Amino acid sequence: MLYQRKNPHGGDTYACPGALDFSANTNPLGTPDEVSKAAEESLSRMDRYPDPYCRELVKAISRFEGLPETFILCGCGAAELIFSYCYAVKPKRALELAPTFSEYSAALDAVGCQIDRWTLKWENGFAVDSSFCDSLQNGQWDAVFLCNPNNPTGRLIEPELLEKIAETCRHKGTRLFVDECFLDLTDSWRENSLKGMLAQYPGLFILKAFTKSYGMAGLRLGYCLSGDNELLSDMAGFSQPWNVSIPAQAAGVAALKQSDFLEQTRSLIRRERPWLEQSLSALGLDVCPSCTNYLLFYSKISLLEKLATRGIVIRDCSNYKGLKKGWYRIAVKRHRENVLLVSALKEILLEEK
Amino acid sequence: MLYQRKNPHGGDTYACPGALDFSANTNPLGTPDEVSKAAEESLSRMDRYPDPYCRELVKAISRFEGLPETFILCGCGAAELIFSYCYAVKPKRALELAPTFSEYSAALDAVGCQIDRWTLKWENGFAVDSSFCDSLQNGQWDAVFLCNPNNPTGRLIEPELLEKIAETCRHKGTRLFVDECFLDLTDSWRENSLKGMLAQYPGLFILKAFTKSYGMAGLRLGYCLSGDNELLSDMAGFSQPWNVSIPAQAAGVAALKQSDFLEQTRSLIRRERPWLEQSLSALGLDVCPSCTNYLLFYSKISLLEKLATRGIVIRDCSNYKGLKKGWYRIAVKRHRENVLLVSALKEILLEEK
Repeated sequence: MLYQRKNPHGGDTYACPGALDFSANTNPLGTPDEVSKAAEESLSRMDRYPDPYCRELVKAISRFEGLPETFILCGCGAAELIFSYCYAVKPKRALELAPTFSEYSAALDAVGCQIDRWTLKWENGFAVDSSFCDSLQNGQWDAVFLCNPNNPTGRLIEPELLEKIAETCRHKGTRLFVDECFLDLTDSWRENSLKGMLAQYPGLFILKAFTKSYGMAGLRLGYCLSGDNELLSDMAGFSQPWNVSIPAQAAGVAALKQSDFLEQTRSLIRRERPWLEQSLSALGLDVCPSCTNYLLFYSKISLLEKLATRGIVIRDCSNYKGLKKGWYRIAVKRHRENVLLVSALKEILLEEK
Repeated sequence: MLYQRKNPHGGDTYACPGALDFSANTNPLGTPDEVSKAAEESLSRMDRYPDPYCRELVKAISRFEGLPETFILCGCGAAELIFSYCYAVKPKRALELAPTFSEYSAALDAVGCQIDRWTLKWENGFAVDSSFCDSLQNGQWDAVFLCNPNNPTGRLIEPELLEKIAETCRHKGTRLFVDECFLDLTDSWRENSLKGMLAQYPGLFILKAFTKSYGMAGLRLGYCLSGDNELLSDMAGFSQPWNVSIPAQAAGVAALKQSDFLEQTRSLIRRERPWLEQSLSALGLDVCPSCTNYLLFYSKISLLEKLATRGIVIRDCSNYKGLKKGWYRIAVKRHRENVLLVSALKEILLEEK
């Protein structure tokens, strides 16, 4: 037995080397060459400590996001920042969606926070609707956690509703944590970001990652945006000074220079996601309408082992709170890979008929 | 202003590029070629998530340390593990040396622990003596933090005394945290390690790093050793699942195959440290007798700016609790670099006469 909480996520294909991995929802195009090159070149300095202030990287993020450097804190992947946020805020009672990314509750558990869950309904396509906003009126939560688009559903919250939610939280003095890690891979990355509200609403916190957008999951680099200087400063105090490695900093700076890469990625997802959605629906599977680079679907027939024997790994979502056995998540990948997945599913489902 | 606690350590030469850095006490030989190569090759997989269980690395550490895999937990540098130790143990009252590495108290502060300090005396060469062990008899501390050899003094605790300290802590039910990050760079790395006691004393915790030993500070990789399964499991729960990056895991596995590298490093230190000690003493500086790859010394004349104008950075130790203005730490580097430092110091001290 090795230590680590039992891995509740996808992407751990180390136990099945060579598998075609649809379980991790990273960028289908992989890592841009210039980013790999920058990481590689930085290794000549690997015997030095990293810059504890991430000076060059913060400058680059500031330009990219159009926000002051004082609104930015970098971390060892977005996941680390979820933990330092919870250590710094120490919420007593928090609200999150169900299903959603499970690291929020892992970090909230670590600080002994009571977690309430807003269960999204399949009848409603797992959408967040205005009743969620109404429930915030009583202001009983110290912090509300949203993931937009939500993981694993791929659903975005409508911009008007999102703004109304943020206004309600602000009015009630509730902190709002919004995970926008997958937003840049959706077509409405501009309209759906709350970053325009950061200056007026210091209780707003936005999480972003290089992991998914630039194919850098293995290097660990994320950042967060907030107008609450004290919070960011506190968060820094809850982790070591050298949390962002030299190759991660170098790769991050290079990634933000790849001006066309995100649009190239969105263009591929724009083509492939509908194709995958239609192909899965045609096989009789229930598919949740997604806005980003992954798809949640339901199958009455157990798929995990049958796909594994065909060398394909997908994400079993039955361990998400709010989902039962039968829900799976797949990444949207390149066409030739998506074709392999659909063929395998077809075979499996025909066999079972 | 960028976020991060104001950096209290050496090695941040990002504000003075091109400087000759004696402030970070990393391996004077830099990174072994095979380690750089392994890190580089691993970048072809950087779009994947790292193995959350560090399977291959834990196997390699287990072989290297001669300890079961269940005694090992890896982290994003030893520094991260100091924080997760404190989050998991949550000591109410702890004892540390003064001066010592400041991340213990940073992490203890983060959990609101009362920190008592055992002040080491220059009259005594900053040595830990038997009176320290006597003070542990009342068992008033939840955890005792030792650094062996101590940073910044470079002093080792005598093996018999160290064992007595560990026995006392065990008897009193006190947890003992021993930072052995620099031990492999001393000549008594065998006799001075407490790892032989891990199996009998589950309250014993040993911290180790690749940072200093293998010139990997920029990649962030450390590990800890303990026979307390529950503690290691708790610690894993206080951080994200992917805290150790792909290049760090790959470099770590390669590093442990460099069977001669540590001995090569010790051999260089064995030659260069006495030379540096004598050279500094000959200049009239008070030098603390060190057992490892750095030297603490005292100078009445202010050195930082004068060395900086000569392109050399050393570690001002006046911010260590237990040290006053005038104490500096230098790394033991290669001969040609050490010569440059000594010449610069000579110039400065002659000017001031």
